[in-house]
Amino acid sequence: MNNPQLNKNRKLQHLLTTEGLPAPILLKILDTAESFVGVTERDIKKVPLLRGKAIFNLFFEPSTRTRTTFEIAAKRLSADIVNLNIASSSQSKGETMLDTVNNLSAMHADMFIVRHSQSGAAHLIARHVRPEIHVINAGDGRHAHPTQALLDMFTIRRYKCDFHNLRVAIVGDILHSRVARSQIHALTTLGVPEVRVISPKTLLPSKVMHLGVHVYHNMEEGLKGVDVVLMLRLQNERMLSARLPSAEEYFKYYGLTQEKLALAKHDAIVMHPGPMNRGIEIESAVADGMQSVILPQVTYGIAVRMAVMTILAGN
Amino acid sequence: MNNPQLNKNRKLQHLLTTEGLPAPILLKILDTAESFVGVTERDIKKVPLLRGKAIFNLFFEPSTRTRTTFEIAAKRLSADIVNLNIASSSQSKGETMLDTVNNLSAMHADMFIVRHSQSGAAHLIARHVRPEIHVINAGDGRHAHPTQALLDMFTIRRYKCDFHNLRVAIVGDILHSRVARSQIHALTTLGVPEVRVISPKTLLPSKVMHLGVHVYHNMEEGLKGVDVVLMLRLQNERMLSARLPSAEEYFKYYGLTQEKLALAKHDAIVMHPGPMNRGIEIESAVADGMQSVILPQVTYGIAVRMAVMTILAGN
Amino acid sequence: MNNPQLNKNRKLQHLLTTEGLPAPILLKILDTAESFVGVTERDIKKVPLLRGKAIFNLFFEPSTRTRTTFEIAAKRLSADIVNLNIASSSQSKGETMLDTVNNLSAMHADMFIVRHSQSGAAHLIARHVRPEIHVINAGDGRHAHPTQALLDMFTIRRYKCDFHNLRVAIVGDILHSRVARSQIHALTTLGVPEVRVISPKTLLPSKVMHLGVHVYHNMEEGLKGVDVVLMLRLQNERMLSARLPSAEEYFKYYGLTQEKLALAKHDAIVMHPGPMNRGIEIESAVADGMQSVILPQVTYGIAVRMAVMTILAGN
Repeated sequence: MNNPQLNKNRKLQHLLTTEGLPAPILLKILDTAESFVGVTERDIKKVPLLRGKAIFNLFFEPSTRTRTTFEIAAKRLSADIVNLNIASSSQSKGETMLDTVNNLSAMHADMFIVRHSQSGAAHLIARHVRPEIHVINAGDGRHAHPTQALLDMFTIRRYKCDFHNLRVAIVGDILHSRVARSQIHALTTLGVPEVRVISPKTLLPSKVMHLGVHVYHNMEEGLKGVDVVLMLRLQNERMLSARLPSAEEYFKYYGLTQEKLALAKHDAIVMHPGPMNRGIEIESAVADGMQSVILPQVTYGIAVRMAVMTILAGN
Repeated sequence: MNNPQLNKNRKLQHLLTTEGLPAPILLKILDTAESFVGVTERDIKKVPLLRGKAIFNLFFEPSTRTRTTFEIAAKRLSADIVNLNIASSSQSKGETMLDTVNNLSAMHADMFIVRHSQSGAAHLIARHVRPEIHVINAGDGRHAHPTQALLDMFTIRRYKCDFHNLRVAIVGDILHSRVARSQIHALTTLGVPEVRVISPKTLLPSKVMHLGVHVYHNMEEGLKGVDVVLMLRLQNERMLSARLPSAEEYFKYYGLTQEKLALAKHDAIVMHPGPMNRGIEIESAVADGMQSVILPQVTYGIAVRMAVMTILAGN
Repeated sequence: MNNPQLNKNRKLQHLLTTEGLPAPILLKILDTAESFVGVTERDIKKVPLLRGKAIFNLFFEPSTRTRTTFEIAAKRLSADIVNLNIASSSQSKGETMLDTVNNLSAMHADMFIVRHSQSGAAHLIARHVRPEIHVINAGDGRHAHPTQALLDMFTIRRYKCDFHNLRVAIVGDILHSRVARSQIHALTTLGVPEVRVISPKTLLPSKVMHLGVHVYHNMEEGLKGVDVVLMLRLQNERMLSARLPSAEEYFKYYGLTQEKLALAKHDAIVMHPGPMNRGIEIESAVADGMQSVILPQVTYGIAVRMAVMTILAGN
């Protein structure tokens, strides 16, 4: 039971994945985030909780959007945040990732936010840093994106109040999605009784059954009676590959339209991690419609990231 | 009379263009900027006016120089500013500009500084954001660059005290210049009785007469007796096009030399929005000469941007 | 005796090179840095010494690592720091470096941190800025990298207490190394009695004798009895050139191995400015070994840069 995310006192040391995190820890993050929702709505949206802390946005894979959410969260906690886009720098000079991390650690870093195209990068870093440094995985390869999953859980709880009576469907490219993987683990841990995945066979991982989900290849069937629809982004490169016939074809079978959404519960909510491909995995009428909570997800994402940073810094 | 820049109380909600802005609003910005000139000369160049505000430098077209002026202005007001260079990010992932803006708005943005290569981009964003968010146009296509025009007006007033007895000449590529357009509207509104444009025929917009300016194709004639010479930057790409014979030719007819400047009033001031092409639109003896106020423009530009941000945040 | 680094009162106005700096000034920087080592180890790693100061990281040559050290140092002093990567911006619009600097100066800059691929760039800037502006050279061509040399001196003093009884060897590509040049001047000024350089003939500057160093082409001989080994980074492009046979060959003769290190004093320390080419100029067993102080160098580098900034701002 050696969980690399927990310290000796069984408290959260790093946030690397939602897999294996006990429900009380997930709930503590959600509860702490509730208190930060208020902060972001105040006139002066700042608290001095992390003043003087040095946080590094360590992005080995570019993502302005995700980088910005962490930068805003850190600044609202009064931390000093430094952005490093590593692809174009030391890595090209041949320095290894761990040398880079060791160097930044030697500058008395307090926290690393890591995004990397390779699965396991954040774990590798977490294993090597000194015990006073915390690592947050901001997306690693196909593996995990825990803050995204946590903000999704926060949003679900805000709209549905409880996890124990929900049917949740995740729709799209499950195979390549770190978001889906992190959502499935979080939903299961938090006690959602029925998690469905809806996907073409070519975009489904072979071991998906082991995750305790119900598989649907027909979207209409899969959406019937669900409370929450979690759409996934379809990467453009998939559409060019042999796995998919065409964007039009994909939209026809797996794009979320008002017609298909009508099969879910009448008060079902629609979520998407962004950025959206309108007209490919979701139509605009749904994305901008009454049941969409896509923008609240973004709002809550700041509060959830502030909560994660604060909890880690306090452990 | 639906001015998209004003809110219901006829106060400035967005700064998108100098066109259509009433003189009292322009003067309020200039007067407020006066108070900030002092701040930037103090030992601690910071005031807490915008503490906790989230300002986004949203640059869809790269410009280190303009981005820096807004970044410095925001930091001197104690705001939290986040730089986003969008060309290389979400846009390439196929997200629309408005989805990007909606996302940042959902993070409780207070202000967007927008630069875009397409005319109208800042207006489009201003029309879509929530009422508590303010938009500043930092240059859109050939359309407008209002903070540049305002800092020019501030500089003119500092050196010439009053607008009502001035002859002002704008020289260069009027056709492609958002700066020229914004200057003409501001000068006219502030009561400058004679605004001249000096330009080759190929670099003059066809409807320029409607703007209430006097057109000169001969620079010597156009400069006679003017109080202010506003030089424009010649984009390198123009020199390669059919619109201009060569850089040497251009300099001969439209480059500002000491000889030509001698035709203006003896105390005429010379301005340029930068960056300058020395030896193309202006010779170094003039750029660095006694009559040049090009560097004071930059200094006042910070104060003017601080004024615009403060006024918007207060409305 | 017109030293461009000193003001009229013989105090440090700019830090451009360690060459020609009197020992008391070097020692004052090291002593001031001692006080900042404590700050970076505190829970709130911030002091308000440079609050409201505007510092510009002016990088004409990209370097995430060096930029980060100055950014962290400035933030720990509560300064406002703006990063400018100039290669991709105004320079491509044809603006000269001095126009860029004049512009930023006009924004009431207090300090420029300059990195440039051409030797002399920081000196040129220092000669042109207004007297209230300070320039720090963060590496110019093959010429100088004074903050690196100063943090090396700080590290040596921390581990060896005194400079007056040391044998120090600098190993590698002396010819192209601004770090080596700055180290040699600093070591000599601080009274190190024996400075050795160890290098293949093709990577040694012809005038190296004038610097008061002892030259070795055989690494085993050169390392005998030394107290400090300063390794240099081998630029990848050198390995492709006619100056070197191959990386393997280089490692065989000039790579620091445990075997070779055993020839130095038993308590000799090993240093490297980073980023390291493991297996080319240094083997991992040494880089990560007991005698390596490579990570402490990085830690002390922040304190030294804080010291330089504070001293300059006070002069």
